[in-house]
Amino acid sequence: MVTELVELTDLVQVAVRDATKALLDADLATAEKVISADSEIDARHDALEAQCFSLLARQAPVAGELRTVVAALRMIADLARMGDLAAHVAKIARLRYPEHAVPEPLVANFTLMARVAEEMVVTAGRSLNERNAHDAGKLADSDEEMDELRRSQFRVILGDSWSHSVEAAVDVALLGRYYERIADHAVIMAARVIYVITGLLPEGENWPSA
Amino acid sequence: MVTELVELTDLVQVAVRDATKALLDADLATAEKVISADSEIDARHDALEAQCFSLLARQAPVAGELRTVVAALRMIADLARMGDLAAHVAKIARLRYPEHAVPEPLVANFTLMARVAEEMVVTAGRSLNERNAHDAGKLADSDEEMDELRRSQFRVILGDSWSHSVEAAVDVALLGRYYERIADHAVIMAARVIYVITGLLPEGENWPSA
Repeated sequence: MVTELVELTDLVQVAVRDATKALLDADLATAEKVISADSEIDARHDALEAQCFSLLARQAPVAGELRTVVAALRMIADLARMGDLAAHVAKIARLRYPEHAVPEPLVANFTLMARVAEEMVVTAGRSLNERNAHDAGKLADSDEEMDELRRSQFRVILGDSWSHSVEAAVDVALLGRYYERIADHAVIMAARVIYVITGLLPEGENWPSA
Repeated sequence: MVTELVELTDLVQVAVRDATKALLDADLATAEKVISADSEIDARHDALEAQCFSLLARQAPVAGELRTVVAALRMIADLARMGDLAAHVAKIARLRYPEHAVPEPLVANFTLMARVAEEMVVTAGRSLNERNAHDAGKLADSDEEMDELRRSQFRVILGDSWSHSVEAAVDVALLGRYYERIADHAVIMAARVIYVITGLLPEGENWPSA
């Protein structure tokens, strides 16, 4: 079960990385690739969920194994959602092709935001694979970095010096939202990793419920 | 378990209704109420999730009861998320107070979109309470209505006759996204209701994985 979850996390990481490439390079072929690959992520979600249901029904797992299965049910939903969000990014890249959806004043911001989001997916997968609750715990801090990057985007698009179109501002607002949500799901996944390892969900305002 | 889920759905419905009132009436007190009430929804999410874990660990439920518990795990996550999204709507209303966040040309659209979203939450809760797979199945159609309303919003804010600010366009894009996501979660919840009743998840492109 953990192996399959880590594999799914790897697919999601590739989706996020490729979506960013599609977005920042206005690369249509890569955008199409991310959008097509999302059905593979969804298919793995469905298969893994069925596997969890079957495990619960046939084996009535207890203790650590039960924790893994119930956490897996939640993690696969988060991973499928991250895949959808990567596809949303790719769809905006495709919609604006051959133009770039991200206007020049925000390229550096999105480059950084996308890197942080992708690293959060990697950390969530690695902490699950290595049963490392300490690494998983650090994800709530990365999430604050994402929030600050998003606030900075709003300052730019709503500032007096914004000289690009309404369309570009709307794209930025939605793209920022998609990356922020990818990060949120990585944090929720990390909370489940901590639960698998320790039996307790982390508490505090940086750990969202949903 | 079903009773608690239906109660949580009722709280979410109130949150969506109040968030819409806050938004369309520029009603600050109601916006504050929605934002505060979200912690109650999150607390119920946490308590219900703990109850599901405990049921799985102590009683090793089988067949229909097992289906209910695993579906409940997913539904409470969707409901908590719908509560968050209602709070996001209320936060935009609060941010723009005493102005209205939704500009006049889009008031009718948002009135309808919010009504459809709220009705979808009601239908999801009622189909769960009454074990009505037929009603749950109709939610995928309402979701298409939401998608069309959202496309219509984009035509307005990106059209040549848009005379409002970039800020208003960005608010509209995000608010539309929040209502659309509330609807999506209602559809996912309906899919779980169908699973509880029939033992099968509905298939087809109108039924999202996550």
